[in-house]
Amino acid sequence: MIGVADVEAAARRIAGRVRRTPVLSVEGGAFDGVADPTWLKLEYLQHTGSFKARGAMNRLLSAAEAGNLGDGVVAASGGNAGLAVAYAAGILGVPAEVYVPLTAPEVKVRKLKALGAEVRQVGAEYAEANAAALERAAQTGALFCHAYDQPEICAGQGTLALEMLDQVDGLDTVILAVGGGGLLAGVAAALHCRARVVGAEPETIPTLHAALAAGQPVDVEVSGIAADALGARRLGDIAYRVAVDTGVRSVLVSDQEVVEARRLLWEQCRIVMEHGTATALAALVTGAYRPEPGERVGILICGANTNPADLAH
Amino acid sequence: MIGVADVEAAARRIAGRVRRTPVLSVEGGAFDGVADPTWLKLEYLQHTGSFKARGAMNRLLSAAEAGNLGDGVVAASGGNAGLAVAYAAGILGVPAEVYVPLTAPEVKVRKLKALGAEVRQVGAEYAEANAAALERAAQTGALFCHAYDQPEICAGQGTLALEMLDQVDGLDTVILAVGGGGLLAGVAAALHCRARVVGAEPETIPTLHAALAAGQPVDVEVSGIAADALGARRLGDIAYRVAVDTGVRSVLVSDQEVVEARRLLWEQCRIVMEHGTATALAALVTGAYRPEPGERVGILICGANTNPADLAH
Repeated sequence: MIGVADVEAAARRIAGRVRRTPVLSVEGGAFDGVADPTWLKLEYLQHTGSFKARGAMNRLLSAAEAGNLGDGVVAASGGNAGLAVAYAAGILGVPAEVYVPLTAPEVKVRKLKALGAEVRQVGAEYAEANAAALERAAQTGALFCHAYDQPEICAGQGTLALEMLDQVDGLDTVILAVGGGGLLAGVAAALHCRARVVGAEPETIPTLHAALAAGQPVDVEVSGIAADALGARRLGDIAYRVAVDTGVRSVLVSDQEVVEARRLLWEQCRIVMEHGTATALAALVTGAYRPEPGERVGILICGANTNPADLAH
Repeated sequence: MIGVADVEAAARRIAGRVRRTPVLSVEGGAFDGVADPTWLKLEYLQHTGSFKARGAMNRLLSAAEAGNLGDGVVAASGGNAGLAVAYAAGILGVPAEVYVPLTAPEVKVRKLKALGAEVRQVGAEYAEANAAALERAAQTGALFCHAYDQPEICAGQGTLALEMLDQVDGLDTVILAVGGGGLLAGVAAALHCRARVVGAEPETIPTLHAALAAGQPVDVEVSGIAADALGARRLGDIAYRVAVDTGVRSVLVSDQEVVEARRLLWEQCRIVMEHGTATALAALVTGAYRPEPGERVGILICGANTNPADLAH
């Protein structure tokens, strides 16, 4: 478990190492069916294009404080988590090894290398790359960075919620996309008793929904448009505990609704976001989450590592 | 001429009708060769994707106050100015006619119609569409909205500079892209004696540079990558007067530097901008404008009506 004190400590630790991202207030009516203003937290402007830089920076700096960063860091991810670990390690001047499957697209490998990471391509699937990363960390003493289910990772992600409390007067509710739950855990811990948290997922990857229904994290089938970014097979244990203890709500949207929300944000605000990220806006514009009149709702626009070509006119 | 009082009046007039756009502070080092932090004014998040909504709204509301908006509005532009007039007219519930050449791309015509404008396609070139629009306004009594060279248009654009003064402590300098000069005039009027204004242009469309050299606005050849957005053939008279009276600096960059700056902002911040807009960032990263150490520089990211397809990986 993590609590608000962990998130506050993370915020102090990573201050000046990550960007304080701005909030855009969008007038009522800009999104069909949404009568009140909405506050968009523009976290896609973060280093490496997603919120993950916060958690990675907090994990590495926490380890440095404890004297455990000398042997570098190891992670397994070809996505935003891997980019974030590579970035944080580069800033702090420690070596990073990032494990990805042999099938990882060349563009992702190139980006990790550009950030200074050693890239290890192992196995046909993510699980094999992950196992190799864990083994490597055990052998070398390097710090293993999980993509979501470690306290320092979760607490780091939650720091954006503290910024939102400061940026939006009277914030009532935050809607965010859920994958493995690192962001959810941090945000819910930060906002406990201060604002409501709504976790939005595609029907095709319902890790939070399934966990709440089953009374524990359970494996789900992973498919659909957002599998690339939200592809965790089950909710992390930390996220599950925080979600239950703080009363997080769960809503589902269809893949088609996600695609339409992504296009809507481009049309109305010229913001490019990942399909995974668009899940949060989809929950609002479809009415999957329906605020009370006057409820002040914030939406996390948390990642933009996407190909914008299909947003062309 | 316009002065700061005109811009302040415009800000009061359009408050709540346009978006207050946020500022992103980008750390030193994010852009090669730029050691200090930079403040990006995210004006591409404005209604219709550019700053032009401010000037159009101010022009229409000023006319409404004087009782001159009853017969609707007329404009000639298939670009951002036309979109802004169509938008403002739609919000205020008055009819808008927008004249474009017969050669205007179908996508631009469709966007204008989607905003509720009547689109009139006349002539082979912009000049013929413009003449037809002027004639129509004279016939009907509708309000003619120029793309840049009217006091209310200029003053409206300048309102974003007042926001920047509020958003960036100790703002020293603002760099912006110059086309016809409506934005330049408003910003320079707003910041006179408070911050330096640098007008950045592609070498291929040097309207400000040529006007300052000649001692008056003169026609220039229009070509190159940014011709679509910055394609005015000469600087407006208002912009020329304000630029001279307030000491605006002029810098030039190459088309290739504009292309690279546009890609750089996508890589570093996941922001999509027009080539015309990118001229401002290009002026900083190339050293065409070289700040003193510690100088607090703001860059206007003022338009995103562009096809993002070429930013794909």
